Amino acid sequence: MELTLKHIAESIGGTIVGDDQVLIKGINSLILADKGEISFLADPRLRDQVKATKASAVIVKELSSLYQGPQLVVPDPYLVYARVAAMFAPPIPRFPGISEKAIIGEETHIGKDVSIYPFVYIGRESVIGNEVILFPGVYVGERVTVGNGSIIYPNVTIVSDCIIGKEVIIHAGTVIGSDGFGYVRDGDVNVKIPQRGIVQIEDNVEIGANNAIDRATFGKTLIRKGVKTDNLVQIGHNVVVGENTIIVAQVGIAGSTTIGKSVVIGGQVGLTDHIEIGDRVMIGSKSGVAKSIPAGDVVSGIPTMPHRLWLKTRGHIRKLPEYSERLKELEDRVKGLEEQSKKGSTG
Amino acid sequence: MELTLKHIAESIGGTIVGDDQVLIKGINSLILADKGEISFLADPRLRDQVKATKASAVIVKELSSLYQGPQLVVPDPYLVYARVAAMFAPPIPRFPGISEKAIIGEETHIGKDVSIYPFVYIGRESVIGNEVILFPGVYVGERVTVGNGSIIYPNVTIVSDCIIGKEVIIHAGTVIGSDGFGYVRDGDVNVKIPQRGIVQIEDNVEIGANNAIDRATFGKTLIRKGVKTDNLVQIGHNVVVGENTIIVAQVGIAGSTTIGKSVVIGGQVGLTDHIEIGDRVMIGSKSGVAKSIPAGDVVSGIPTMPHRLWLKTRGHIRKLPEYSERLKELEDRVKGLEEQSKKGSTG
Amino acid sequence: MELTLKHIAESIGGTIVGDDQVLIKGINSLILADKGEISFLADPRLRDQVKATKASAVIVKELSSLYQGPQLVVPDPYLVYARVAAMFAPPIPRFPGISEKAIIGEETHIGKDVSIYPFVYIGRESVIGNEVILFPGVYVGERVTVGNGSIIYPNVTIVSDCIIGKEVIIHAGTVIGSDGFGYVRDGDVNVKIPQRGIVQIEDNVEIGANNAIDRATFGKTLIRKGVKTDNLVQIGHNVVVGENTIIVAQVGIAGSTTIGKSVVIGGQVGLTDHIEIGDRVMIGSKSGVAKSIPAGDVVSGIPTMPHRLWLKTRGHIRKLPEYSERLKELEDRVKGLEEQSKKGSTG
Repeated sequence: MELTLKHIAESIGGTIVGDDQVLIKGINSLILADKGEISFLADPRLRDQVKATKASAVIVKELSSLYQGPQLVVPDPYLVYARVAAMFAPPIPRFPGISEKAIIGEETHIGKDVSIYPFVYIGRESVIGNEVILFPGVYVGERVTVGNGSIIYPNVTIVSDCIIGKEVIIHAGTVIGSDGFGYVRDGDVNVKIPQRGIVQIEDNVEIGANNAIDRATFGKTLIRKGVKTDNLVQIGHNVVVGENTIIVAQVGIAGSTTIGKSVVIGGQVGLTDHIEIGDRVMIGSKSGVAKSIPAGDVVSGIPTMPHRLWLKTRGHIRKLPEYSERLKELEDRVKGLEEQSKKGSTG
Repeated sequence: MELTLKHIAESIGGTIVGDDQVLIKGINSLILADKGEISFLADPRLRDQVKATKASAVIVKELSSLYQGPQLVVPDPYLVYARVAAMFAPPIPRFPGISEKAIIGEETHIGKDVSIYPFVYIGRESVIGNEVILFPGVYVGERVTVGNGSIIYPNVTIVSDCIIGKEVIIHAGTVIGSDGFGYVRDGDVNVKIPQRGIVQIEDNVEIGANNAIDRATFGKTLIRKGVKTDNLVQIGHNVVVGENTIIVAQVGIAGSTTIGKSVVIGGQVGLTDHIEIGDRVMIGSKSGVAKSIPAGDVVSGIPTMPHRLWLKTRGHIRKLPEYSERLKELEDRVKGLEEQSKKGSTG
Repeated sequence: MELTLKHIAESIGGTIVGDDQVLIKGINSLILADKGEISFLADPRLRDQVKATKASAVIVKELSSLYQGPQLVVPDPYLVYARVAAMFAPPIPRFPGISEKAIIGEETHIGKDVSIYPFVYIGRESVIGNEVILFPGVYVGERVTVGNGSIIYPNVTIVSDCIIGKEVIIHAGTVIGSDGFGYVRDGDVNVKIPQRGIVQIEDNVEIGANNAIDRATFGKTLIRKGVKTDNLVQIGHNVVVGENTIIVAQVGIAGSTTIGKSVVIGGQVGLTDHIEIGDRVMIGSKSGVAKSIPAGDVVSGIPTMPHRLWLKTRGHIRKLPEYSERLKELEDRVKGLEEQSKKGSTG
């Protein structure tokens, strides 16, 4: 596919300075771009790369004197880059229709223009929306719903009764709807609490690879619209994750915790159970969250504290051996002063 | 299924106050319960929910004046709830017999009343017990044993020679018997140490989703009776986990470490290799365990310390910038005093 | 298979003291070894086990007077053990040829002596090298290359266009080439940045179970020769891991970070994005790496500090409550001295 720069600007917006008829067939970073590709300057630190790029056009915020070719001037080059990249993204490979090597349960309802690869298993009474792609090795349990346009990558497991919205992407190896982790002690023995609820994933969610999202004890574990999770994320039973929240890799969220909207949770963070994280909270990577956090706070550390305080605090940790010595020395000096003072007063 | 409250009490125990002929068809939380369902009051903080519940009966520890319907009085409502929930739990969906789309190796022995779904692969000389369920995408290697009544969820991998006990549950995506992580340096190159042992999982164990449990170098990695692991847990080669131990999500246990009985390991804890954790130890979430821990200890932190000490300590971490300033200020004041004292004595 | 000790010494090196015609049919630890097996003394702390071993020969660094049988004296018994164990390791079970129950896409190129199990899916235009083993449930996307002699365990997913080198081992459940985690905010909404690059894994790499290695945004995520990763490791988009680096379980490496050669990264370490870790760096388990680290450094802690400093520092953390009290007490005593001094000077 080749598009003129003019066509791109008309689709996405922005002002062209230079030849608007230049033909673009792809997008790439400044360093990797070749003739025929468009690139972008989103990070001012990369300004010098503009000089050397071979790209046939560049998306910029402000006109750059270091680049001689046509420039597309836009308010947010990074966002425009994402949209242009989507225009040129190769289509996801689709199996034509329903493979004879897939198993489709009874009383299922399969939509139009689906792509169901070999070795897919769909349990009875499930509903698969239009244009859904199910890659090889996907297991869909009984009475599951997968909404229109969703893409389920290989070897994903969706256990019975879960609900997946529209335009959802689930990356390979992820498990949706495994049993929540609940036991009652009876003497030494752990008695399993049956996990009766489901997982519901709303529209436009993207779940990374090898995640585990547990079904609720009762009711549902709920991942709201537009949430994005990275790889190897753990979400416990009855957790609610608010709209457009971002969860970076290897985060663990314990049971019944509620996360607000547009929250950002850094990598390897752990959140305890039954707490509430307010809207727009930001949690630094590797934090241990033991208490609820009010909306808008920015926190880090184990245990969490305001992020600015953490930036100050963490430098002091490595000075503890020094502080300990200074404390000891002070005690000696004060003792000396006290003895002198005693002598003075009795002398 | 509908049961009278009397029937439930006769099966599980407890004293009914009120109409023992009320018909129960399910169990639910106080808030979600509807007419025809039983609920339970296990957490005294939820006492007010009893007033508003629509449940047709409630399991309680002490008779509640806030609820007008029949009450089942028991010593441990949470445990009784788990048992009643098990009575009403929907059966796991079973494939009738052995699918023609499964591959069963030569010289295998398959028990009675098994449920072997399509796309299951069983290697030669393996033994599958009675009433076992193997979901789609399960891989069972050669000479593997799976005991009676075990349930293996989709896309689980059990590598050759491993032994799975009776009534074991393994959730989706988990890998049992991958090679332990062992290399010897030969100059710059890492030479692989063949991992010759197996994983043995005893009866009544439940393993969460996307776990990785490595086979031993020699001998076996051993998960004893009644152990429960949450999701995304890593268990290294030659680890032994004692009976009824609970391991929360994203824990990592390094090679040859031995965990006692009835231990509780919180989420995201890491344990180093070749240490011993005594019986009934409790380890707080996100702890880093670098040393053996004697039986009965309750620890937290990186590195671990007694949990009570950690609760005190962690509040001080955020005060380090303040302590540092107070230390500096004290030094100035002591210096002042010392100079004054010198002047005094020489004046 | 039975080999004389002489044959083993001729293959691997070392000097035999005692009967070089003793027949060896396997290798085992000192405690587990039986007659007919060879064992090894690599850890001097196990010296006493030599006395009791039933092994028919022992690999040693220095001749042991505690053992009466033949000894193979070598400079590095641990390395020799690894090599002897490889001689006796049972072969990986191979499916004979290409299963009729596998799906092989059009225009693929499949090498000689491959072992392609049932329920394998290979997308179009992919190239599978000679003697490759693909276990059940493996998904290979379109235009993927898998080099000669590589072993891909069950339920592994390799997404389109990725390149796997020769003699690579990928353990079960791992995902190679899932989308990198990249979004741009547009108001409240997260707009996906298409991930156009690939993952390239060079020769002799071993990847553990349930890893997730993301494809690059542009260009490639690169795992260089001889790298070994343990289980549940996360490697973000555009990361480069240098030759022979060791990555222990549950490590997370954020996007665009570069790791040098022969680095060792302990379990549960997190590394932030866009940093550089020099050659031969060692990072203690559970560390949080927020900055680049120069070659050769040994670091630990959150945030990382020199490992020796961390060993000192961590003991002080638990003393913070005590230090806080001592600080308060000193302040009182200094205040007392100051008041006395004032009185003295005004008195």
